[in-house]
Amino acid sequence: MAPVILINPFEVAAGREDEFVRLWEAAAAYMQRQPGYVSTRLHRALLPNARFAFVNVGEFESPDQFLAAISTDEFQQLAGAMSDFPAAPALYEVVREHHT
Amino acid sequence: MAPVILINPFEVAAGREDEFVRLWEAAAAYMQRQPGYVSTRLHRALLPNARFAFVNVGEFESPDQFLAAISTDEFQQLAGAMSDFPAAPALYEVVREHHT
Repeated sequence: MAPVILINPFEVAAGREDEFVRLWEAAAAYMQRQPGYVSTRLHRALLPNARFAFVNVGEFESPDQFLAAISTDEFQQLAGAMSDFPAAPALYEVVREHHT
Repeated sequence: MAPVILINPFEVAAGREDEFVRLWEAAAAYMQRQPGYVSTRLHRALLPNARFAFVNVGEFESPDQFLAAISTDEFQQLAGAMSDFPAAPALYEVVREHHT
């Protein structure tokens, strides 16, 4: 079965990038211990004026496993620590794909 | 050299998904003919309440090749046809990566 894909764009004010990455790393370390976790990639915008300075693209084996991972008190604390950085997380499937 | 990554989240109103995908496919077909194009993946949100119903993640060999691809009259017409769907495109690099 194809993994489900989490895409999470983050707004991060200029000068707070390092703080954001430290908090993101703590949340990522938690995720890597959860059942169904497959992979994650954190992207950083090349230009400082991007609306979303960072975008995380992760994979889980199933939506239910992802929802279980984010429902714990531990994750809620990790996510709460990032509340200064507005985010727009959602789960996705690939509907079109092309590669040279 | 690592490719540059285009991430483009789109807001698409409920009921207009098919229209959006047709317009996106025309723009994707153009991109596939441009120098430096590597790949593209169109993601669709699993749930209807997602802020960004679609997210495109593409790869180009370099920022300059991507910027050349979007600077043509042909691309501007394709992008203009999609102006009903607010987007937040930006170029990214991967700064953290982990896989099981």
